[in-house]
Amino acid sequence: MKGKLFYIGLLVSFLAAGIAHYAHLDTTWQFVIACVAIVFVAGFLGRATESVAHYAGDRMGGFLNATFGNAAELIIAFFLVKDGLFEVVKASLTGAIIGNLLLVLGLSLFAGGLKYKEQSFNVKLASHNSSLMILGVVALFIPALFARGLTTDETSSMSMIVAIILIVAYLLWLYFSMVTHKSVLSDEAIEHGEAAWSKGTSIVFLILATAMVAFTSEWLVGTIEEVKDKFGLSDLFVGAFLIAIIGNAAEHSAAVMMAMKNKMGAAVEIAIGSSLQIALFVAPVLILLSFFISGSPMNIVFTTYEIAAIGVAVFITKSITQDGSTNWYEGLLLMFVYIILGVVFFLV
Amino acid sequence: MKGKLFYIGLLVSFLAAGIAHYAHLDTTWQFVIACVAIVFVAGFLGRATESVAHYAGDRMGGFLNATFGNAAELIIAFFLVKDGLFEVVKASLTGAIIGNLLLVLGLSLFAGGLKYKEQSFNVKLASHNSSLMILGVVALFIPALFARGLTTDETSSMSMIVAIILIVAYLLWLYFSMVTHKSVLSDEAIEHGEAAWSKGTSIVFLILATAMVAFTSEWLVGTIEEVKDKFGLSDLFVGAFLIAIIGNAAEHSAAVMMAMKNKMGAAVEIAIGSSLQIALFVAPVLILLSFFISGSPMNIVFTTYEIAAIGVAVFITKSITQDGSTNWYEGLLLMFVYIILGVVFFLV
Amino acid sequence: MKGKLFYIGLLVSFLAAGIAHYAHLDTTWQFVIACVAIVFVAGFLGRATESVAHYAGDRMGGFLNATFGNAAELIIAFFLVKDGLFEVVKASLTGAIIGNLLLVLGLSLFAGGLKYKEQSFNVKLASHNSSLMILGVVALFIPALFARGLTTDETSSMSMIVAIILIVAYLLWLYFSMVTHKSVLSDEAIEHGEAAWSKGTSIVFLILATAMVAFTSEWLVGTIEEVKDKFGLSDLFVGAFLIAIIGNAAEHSAAVMMAMKNKMGAAVEIAIGSSLQIALFVAPVLILLSFFISGSPMNIVFTTYEIAAIGVAVFITKSITQDGSTNWYEGLLLMFVYIILGVVFFLV
Repeated sequence: MKGKLFYIGLLVSFLAAGIAHYAHLDTTWQFVIACVAIVFVAGFLGRATESVAHYAGDRMGGFLNATFGNAAELIIAFFLVKDGLFEVVKASLTGAIIGNLLLVLGLSLFAGGLKYKEQSFNVKLASHNSSLMILGVVALFIPALFARGLTTDETSSMSMIVAIILIVAYLLWLYFSMVTHKSVLSDEAIEHGEAAWSKGTSIVFLILATAMVAFTSEWLVGTIEEVKDKFGLSDLFVGAFLIAIIGNAAEHSAAVMMAMKNKMGAAVEIAIGSSLQIALFVAPVLILLSFFISGSPMNIVFTTYEIAAIGVAVFITKSITQDGSTNWYEGLLLMFVYIILGVVFFLV
Repeated sequence: MKGKLFYIGLLVSFLAAGIAHYAHLDTTWQFVIACVAIVFVAGFLGRATESVAHYAGDRMGGFLNATFGNAAELIIAFFLVKDGLFEVVKASLTGAIIGNLLLVLGLSLFAGGLKYKEQSFNVKLASHNSSLMILGVVALFIPALFARGLTTDETSSMSMIVAIILIVAYLLWLYFSMVTHKSVLSDEAIEHGEAAWSKGTSIVFLILATAMVAFTSEWLVGTIEEVKDKFGLSDLFVGAFLIAIIGNAAEHSAAVMMAMKNKMGAAVEIAIGSSLQIALFVAPVLILLSFFISGSPMNIVFTTYEIAAIGVAVFITKSITQDGSTNWYEGLLLMFVYIILGVVFFLV
Repeated sequence: MKGKLFYIGLLVSFLAAGIAHYAHLDTTWQFVIACVAIVFVAGFLGRATESVAHYAGDRMGGFLNATFGNAAELIIAFFLVKDGLFEVVKASLTGAIIGNLLLVLGLSLFAGGLKYKEQSFNVKLASHNSSLMILGVVALFIPALFARGLTTDETSSMSMIVAIILIVAYLLWLYFSMVTHKSVLSDEAIEHGEAAWSKGTSIVFLILATAMVAFTSEWLVGTIEEVKDKFGLSDLFVGAFLIAIIGNAAEHSAAVMMAMKNKMGAAVEIAIGSSLQIALFVAPVLILLSFFISGSPMNIVFTTYEIAAIGVAVFITKSITQDGSTNWYEGLLLMFVYIILGVVFFLV
């Protein structure tokens, strides 16, 4: 969706969501409208981030894009944390990771593969990405396994320490991939057009977009408990499928578009890079934040179901991407795994 | 075993098994003779399938070979399902998968490796095979993990849905590997000699062989409960080792023969391809069938032991085959894992 | 540490440890001094082994180095077994494996990577090593999983059988890598200087060093129970971190030195090779030994925590080494995983 149409959608959906909230419309409607609005405001935030990144220069811009690429998820999760909906937060992080690895990447491979018989990308990048993803899985799996034998206080300490290690690992990864080994990992760059706006406007829009995401997130989060009860949905399903999909809609379309232009390297970078950010940056930041904004801190202990889903997603993504070449069937495989997970998450 | 000798063995063992059954011989003898007969009739069915495939043309023939390659296992399992021996069915599917990956492939690599220092095959094929195997493992692992939290009805729904997804994935795989990406995956073809019989004879023999497999399977299955009790064997051991080995004897010898002719690609295709068929086609077909032929439908929930065994087998096979090159020691490694699993399955 | 300084340290620390032991010094002091002494006597044993290997010729020397490279760990573990401290033994084996894979290899990659942008080594070796490591993981994982359903006697039988399979697999691996496929796997050889001593002296020193390791180990092991109680440490932490680190100090420094000379193949061989030895040789030998020297035999059943730690370590090491090329960030990743494991092992 380009140009005017997008901005009309943005304004209309945002206003409608606001009206629905303050007029105390039926909760289901509030929820639905807020979902639509989130897709638009998250898309707006993405454009503004990119535009600011454009003016910030190559290196700083890369850093901005990498770190604020999941700003929308972070903001939604912030309000979930504030309301103490820890299980939904963790489910939405899980959903964002498996959604990016299985649905976004799967759709990209499939759509690209229908057009091109075989698509390829830099193997080095794939190999590093999968090692990093394994660190993410380890960092979620180990605490969950050992938490049984720990007190609440020990679990909190463990969560804090692991969170700090992950953030350090993520920052060093940015340093590694953008400074010391940039040339080794570079692939077709993600396409950045001309900046849409002047420097000043870009910054103003970035602030505006962040505010809009924040408002819409708060309105959305406020309806979740009721919607869950009304339709008998589990935390897991709401977080891992509903919230994760709307929060990532912008990345979804960007990655698929790249794949259809035969820029598979960029598509993989968006999909896997976004998962990495969530596992290594968004999740640990939320854990540290929760210690400040909430009485009872959120811990890093994910459920067995969540870890199994993430582990399975990482394992099959690693298997499919490690040869640096993809086709339509591999895209389908990823989506089949996503559907299987969706079915069981819905049933549980 | 070629020519006349084979057909004499076929007739003698089949008749003996029939006599043993109808004369109500001692159950142990019935079991042993039926086991021998199964090896022969399954071999006969394999020859007939190949001969019909020969006349069916390249593409349809490939499809026939791929889909009916495990017809014997399917028929045996059908009678097990009919008798409600679900645990034995699942154990025999497990056994067929690990038997193909560890024993058949292990023996092939070992025997071939003693003759040739290093043997190689198409890496693309290995890479796709392992991604598919992971789908199979995921499709067994996820339901088993989540089944704890589900009711019987939900488990049934889940089993049906996952079964349908697997069958769709398998059919699309055939389309992918035989139509859209045939050239990418082709390796040394599995050797097909002249058709042994005329077209008409081939079809008659295919029907005859299927009938013989069906009779022998029914006789065999009828003795299992008593043999198990008499020798104190578990469902797991009977299904995963006894039935799986006799049902796969034909593939075993074919794969090892290919390896010794330095056609490692064909050997790998037989061994891994057969496992894939069982995980992605035979198992889900049985689940769908069980809903029609049995009052209480079989579910897709395998035991932890079975999933661990399959997971371990897939993981080490993937590790060994992913470089597209093999040697005698790698064959031994696979067999060592098979022996370890055999020991623990026997003890449990 | 070279030359005179080393031998002065050796003598002083060994004598001090002996005096501390026989004078019944404070247990904490006995423990600390014995730890220092172990580092020296293990280093001395390593030098003596290498010198004898030098005279034994290429093949036999390689065998000696490979098999007695972990002699110090074996001797320490022997005394732990003798005192019935089975849990500490298994924890120390776990610690030696993850220490070599994560800490030693991680430090080597990091230190080497700071000096050289990219370091590479023979991919064949990496691929074989990881297949062998998987056998090791399987051999620990399967018994632990199945042990729940077994009696003590059955567990003992299973442990003995699996131990024998592992030793056979290890001996055949030596045959494979040193005889039939030596040329395929060879990389930069581990540097062997001139022999330090004459043949006779070397043998005498080997015997002397073994005796010194034995004495120091016995003194050390005698203090462990008290130290554990005094500081409230778990078997897991003492075995997996304290004992494992001091027992492997010699390998640590050797591997890091190789990496800094850009001989990454040798560094990887030391680190991964040492883990393999422990999983496939030291552990099963201890199990067989325990049947003779202890009333109640040690079994091969490791705790879930230990197997998870080993599995995680193997999985990430495999992911990082499989492309035959390393850099500083990959070294950090390994160390981050080590730290995470250290934190949770300490907390449990």
